[in-house]
Amino acid sequence: MTENNMVISVDAMGGDNSPRVVIEGLAIAAKKHPDIKFLVFGDTALVNPILQRFPELAKVCELRHSAEMVHNEDKPSSVIRNRNTSMFMAIDAVRKGEAQAVVSAGNTGALMAISKLTLKTITKIHRPAIVSIMPHRFGKYVMLDLGANTECDAINLAEFAFMGEILARHALGIARPKVALLNIGSEDMKGKEEIRQAAQMIKCSKMDIDFIGFIEPHEIANGKADVIVADGFTGNIALKSIEGTAKQLTRMIKDAVKSSLLAKIGMVFMMPALWKIKKIMDPRIYNGAMFVGLNGLSVKSHGGTDALGFSYAVDNAANLIRQNFVPTIREDIEKVDFDEIQTVLYDMY
Amino acid sequence: MTENNMVISVDAMGGDNSPRVVIEGLAIAAKKHPDIKFLVFGDTALVNPILQRFPELAKVCELRHSAEMVHNEDKPSSVIRNRNTSMFMAIDAVRKGEAQAVVSAGNTGALMAISKLTLKTITKIHRPAIVSIMPHRFGKYVMLDLGANTECDAINLAEFAFMGEILARHALGIARPKVALLNIGSEDMKGKEEIRQAAQMIKCSKMDIDFIGFIEPHEIANGKADVIVADGFTGNIALKSIEGTAKQLTRMIKDAVKSSLLAKIGMVFMMPALWKIKKIMDPRIYNGAMFVGLNGLSVKSHGGTDALGFSYAVDNAANLIRQNFVPTIREDIEKVDFDEIQTVLYDMY
Repeated sequence: MTENNMVISVDAMGGDNSPRVVIEGLAIAAKKHPDIKFLVFGDTALVNPILQRFPELAKVCELRHSAEMVHNEDKPSSVIRNRNTSMFMAIDAVRKGEAQAVVSAGNTGALMAISKLTLKTITKIHRPAIVSIMPHRFGKYVMLDLGANTECDAINLAEFAFMGEILARHALGIARPKVALLNIGSEDMKGKEEIRQAAQMIKCSKMDIDFIGFIEPHEIANGKADVIVADGFTGNIALKSIEGTAKQLTRMIKDAVKSSLLAKIGMVFMMPALWKIKKIMDPRIYNGAMFVGLNGLSVKSHGGTDALGFSYAVDNAANLIRQNFVPTIREDIEKVDFDEIQTVLYDMY
Repeated sequence: MTENNMVISVDAMGGDNSPRVVIEGLAIAAKKHPDIKFLVFGDTALVNPILQRFPELAKVCELRHSAEMVHNEDKPSSVIRNRNTSMFMAIDAVRKGEAQAVVSAGNTGALMAISKLTLKTITKIHRPAIVSIMPHRFGKYVMLDLGANTECDAINLAEFAFMGEILARHALGIARPKVALLNIGSEDMKGKEEIRQAAQMIKCSKMDIDFIGFIEPHEIANGKADVIVADGFTGNIALKSIEGTAKQLTRMIKDAVKSSLLAKIGMVFMMPALWKIKKIMDPRIYNGAMFVGLNGLSVKSHGGTDALGFSYAVDNAANLIRQNFVPTIREDIEKVDFDEIQTVLYDMY
């Protein structure tokens, strides 16, 4: 066991093919991040035999036994009462300061509920949000909230904008990210009241972010903004619409190629060019949704991903730890005067 | 001037390249629908020279002069006060019974505002909705509302489900369309309260529709449902996310092909197969959003479409007139007991 300062705790039992995919994913991540130690929670009888297949990983892993696990159908209200699951123990390690981030491929609702209960929301932030990194035509952007908060008011949205901006700086390396609110039109009067109020708040407050106003979903692909802010319902609808359409089109092209010999021949020539697109669009690269607004970092891997996908979720955690993401939000939020922001809202009426 | 019974009134001045694109579109539509007469409203000095280039169309057209027009930046509140615009006059022809439907490529908000004011909402229906036909992997589906109502309650959503089902039967020729509510999860407790309430209402009421519950955006492409119901904000977000992603991917493939000689060669072989997809996905085919829930039919063509696209909007109007769409909704809605539906809602609490 090396004495690394950076520690990521891992729920080995979450996801469709756990603990195998989780451990294989950690093996890939460990090679990329030799300075990180992993605190792995799970059924040792199941995890250990797999871990032993990766001696290099085993050297930077500490395996701790958990007798139980969170299942996909478990309700958030019940999982928060069971401290013996691998997920609870992994998150609790962050609370105790044993790790700086937790990664799990388990039940999203459960991970958010336990993370909120255990890590607590950062002072002044009302609600945590789920953020993902996604590809646009010329690079990447972050979108939040993707489903933690079905209903949001203007203050929630303004806070998401604030946290999303910090995340884009840290995770995408953009010095001054452009922030936009997702809406159904670009004019001031368009959309829902809370979105218009949030725009007003961000504009009039002293939040030092490059706010560019409203963005419509079809403009996201053009790279107009680096941070897309929405309530959890709208963000989730947009995310699944984008992912669904990309999948459908890819499948239609595959089907069309399969049905024609000529197209199959053409495909051979086109492969190198299409390969580039496939690499840019590969959903595994964007795996690892980050929960922001908590005193600690929770990263949610897709439950159905493979080892490579899981390793990308670990990458997100590792990068944000290295960049001091959570302490930065905590410090920066201290500078924001939320009373002043509220005043802006009252002045609108 | 022939004496056809079916009449479509047309706003010749709406859209980016009006009246040229409108008249050229009508020329295409007139060939497909020799039994339909067009009542065209616009600046005769501009419209007539173009109309004269299509003598066959001129035979089934009646051109009426309008001194003014609705502009893209006009506010709905102002356009409803000006009865001299081509848009107002075209819609008013439906109210007067001179036409059964109106087609315009002008300002959507204006078209909806004047349509509501002039044609009035069908008794028992609280709010009209905007519907479009869209392609999924195995056919077509309808989605509503796409933007007429930013905020909706459960009753609005239930009514959209009801009207969307009738539209799918008429416009898609599906005998028993499957109807679903757009949501961020498939479980009963997921999403917003008004969506859960609407589901309960539709299930418990005596509405005779094949309601399959919630659908998530990424499932739309699989053809799981024929009618997708959402509030206008959510529907608009989903629509623009889908359209934007399809456009982005197509552009990425084009860019990739351009950048490689090998890919260009491959493209030649693949063209016939890709052509099929292009034909299925061609946005012009799906042009013509229908406003449902009014005593008369308004069809909104995309402002930036070409003549072929405009002709598809006219097709939608023609097909729905032929199928007695508006009278059917009016008759069917008579059979629905809205007091009973309200009771379902009260019983939930």
